[in-house]
Amino acid sequence: MAVNFTVFEDFSVVKGVRIGVAQSAVRYQNRDDMVIFELAEGTEVAGVFTTNAFCAAPVHICRAHLDVAKPRYLLINTGNANAGTGPSGHKNAVRSCDMLAAATGVNAEQILPFSTGVIGEPLNMAAFERGIPAALDNLSEDNWARAGRGIMTTDTLPKGFSKQVEINGTTVTITGLSKGAGMIMPNMATMLGFIATDAAIPAELMQSWCRKLADTSFNRVTIDGDTSTNDSCVLIATGQSSVAISDESSEAAKIMFAALSEVFLLLAQAIVRDGEGATKFVTIDVEGGASQKEALDVAYTVAHSPLVKTAWFASDANWGRILAAVGRSGVQNFDLDKVQIYLNDVQIVEDGGRCDNYTEEKGAAVLAGAEFTVRIILGRGDINERIWTTDLSHDYVTINADYRS
Amino acid sequence: MAVNFTVFEDFSVVKGVRIGVAQSAVRYQNRDDMVIFELAEGTEVAGVFTTNAFCAAPVHICRAHLDVAKPRYLLINTGNANAGTGPSGHKNAVRSCDMLAAATGVNAEQILPFSTGVIGEPLNMAAFERGIPAALDNLSEDNWARAGRGIMTTDTLPKGFSKQVEINGTTVTITGLSKGAGMIMPNMATMLGFIATDAAIPAELMQSWCRKLADTSFNRVTIDGDTSTNDSCVLIATGQSSVAISDESSEAAKIMFAALSEVFLLLAQAIVRDGEGATKFVTIDVEGGASQKEALDVAYTVAHSPLVKTAWFASDANWGRILAAVGRSGVQNFDLDKVQIYLNDVQIVEDGGRCDNYTEEKGAAVLAGAEFTVRIILGRGDINERIWTTDLSHDYVTINADYRS
Repeated sequence: MAVNFTVFEDFSVVKGVRIGVAQSAVRYQNRDDMVIFELAEGTEVAGVFTTNAFCAAPVHICRAHLDVAKPRYLLINTGNANAGTGPSGHKNAVRSCDMLAAATGVNAEQILPFSTGVIGEPLNMAAFERGIPAALDNLSEDNWARAGRGIMTTDTLPKGFSKQVEINGTTVTITGLSKGAGMIMPNMATMLGFIATDAAIPAELMQSWCRKLADTSFNRVTIDGDTSTNDSCVLIATGQSSVAISDESSEAAKIMFAALSEVFLLLAQAIVRDGEGATKFVTIDVEGGASQKEALDVAYTVAHSPLVKTAWFASDANWGRILAAVGRSGVQNFDLDKVQIYLNDVQIVEDGGRCDNYTEEKGAAVLAGAEFTVRIILGRGDINERIWTTDLSHDYVTINADYRS
Repeated sequence: MAVNFTVFEDFSVVKGVRIGVAQSAVRYQNRDDMVIFELAEGTEVAGVFTTNAFCAAPVHICRAHLDVAKPRYLLINTGNANAGTGPSGHKNAVRSCDMLAAATGVNAEQILPFSTGVIGEPLNMAAFERGIPAALDNLSEDNWARAGRGIMTTDTLPKGFSKQVEINGTTVTITGLSKGAGMIMPNMATMLGFIATDAAIPAELMQSWCRKLADTSFNRVTIDGDTSTNDSCVLIATGQSSVAISDESSEAAKIMFAALSEVFLLLAQAIVRDGEGATKFVTIDVEGGASQKEALDVAYTVAHSPLVKTAWFASDANWGRILAAVGRSGVQNFDLDKVQIYLNDVQIVEDGGRCDNYTEEKGAAVLAGAEFTVRIILGRGDINERIWTTDLSHDYVTINADYRS
């Protein structure tokens, strides 16, 4: 029951990227659960990863491999996160890279492994023996849609998007996939995101762009506040089109960055729209903070409040719960009398109290929609922040009380 | 559906405390919703209050009145929190004190007002005109049980406890009430707690004891992480028994403090046991922290994780979610390899990975119980902290999606 979500079907191929998909039975039978990206020689790759102190074995390996080599393959399995698996988990992740390296003739360091699914279970290596050759057998430029389904866990719908822009008269393509519906919270919010373009982007720009793009998209969404051990977001530039970005301040770079931003944001928002049990898609705008930290503290305290989220689920404009959450967000020397709160255009809190011309009917009319914006003006400075989140519904409890069974 | 909760019925009177209870229809009809405590002259009172920056009007007034006078009355209404109500809310709270002062002949500063219930609605002052005389009409030493019901909001059961101890051959009585089931989180965790004794405790000891007692009881429980705007906890010593505590290091003081600790803890735990939708009562022990802050950060991150809480609801020993929550708790330079996690006596995580002799059956056997302890050993220092919390169930969503309707 995703919120205002249309599955994107019309993927544009990205020259230099071929994708193979297979049923390997890592955990579940009879579904695609292993995806291999093959990247053309010369492709630049940058990644940002979870800030969870207990990050999964594949995350450690991705970071290490990115430091020493240019990736030629991404190896992704769903069903098992290979997290909390200790030294044997590390060995299994290394072994999966070795297996793909042997099958393709590249070095193991040129492979980035990604795992998503249940935490703490040993990785089923027989699945890799089955899945790797099967996925390599069907490598194709046209496999984006199938790959989007192949990396799903509790996602109800595959998440992907393509965009083309003209740069210096040449069409540049950006196509990306993301997945994740629970254990979603900033500091690498998505569990997995893969965004590829056929433009050439110099290595020195890739990492800073990937960080900037993630910080305004995947790092600004939250469903349940639970930062995953496996969150990974990868930007891929194959350079197979004739467009090469050089100077960050060039017009071409600006067009490219804006287009990438749009794809990152749509993929990040897709995760929220398909959030576990989500019935609402909520934008939280915090304005007038004295610092970015306090603006984000307010935004996330509201976004994570179970009371606020259950009220949204009930389409109840219970602004008292929002006010209470703002009040406990840890902002020092808070002057309540300066706080204004709006639901879309409807002002509910004026100078810290209920707005005189606010009525329950006006609030209810906004909350009846599947999407709305909560705008909180702090009156303390000029820092604004925006994040996206969902409500907390019965289905969230059902999904997460049943996930392992 | 409170967890292992027996309603306490056998209240001991506290000499010097009389209680009146009335139906005033603050919000709901035909239920007790207004409670007045009358305290004998010479009674010492100390209080600790919410840390929410947007604390309610009555909390402001309680703090101000405690600074300037010795309280003779507590005036409590349920159904409306008088929070987020701006200047008119403040005026209404002052007026309620004035009304009770006029009816009893004390100064308004000798009255402490408490409100609990919905946030942001104007207080219904006609209810105070009805309720105050009605409650004063039935002042009695024996009204503790009825008062416990009279202060309930979403509580399913009244919470109270009495304890008697011998000090220097004389019986000293402690009787207390608490209420609260949602919007429960530390930094004054309970919405309301009133604990009275007939011992004499000197004024200079009262505030430090009240703070210490709250810090190890009400400030160590959490249901949903939502710190209320109205949390208040009051310690009352009437001095009507012949027992007078003087020196904090005396044997008498130690017996008294231990007995008060027990009552505070039982009342705080009762709030968790009756937590909204609670089906589990969970103790979280964090051991071996390098500081109190990091031990509590770990404990609360686990306690507030929707994924951990829904797994508990499902009686699922999904320790991967616990490990992920520990990992995102913000502890710096975390060494995963030193982390041990137990469910009761069953070790599930050993040196950061799954314990060799752990089985799902062992974990499931612990989780099948309505009460269990999650013990997390960090291996970083010698600071231990303990908190109590609940699971996250369908009933939590139902209760909070329906509360205002």
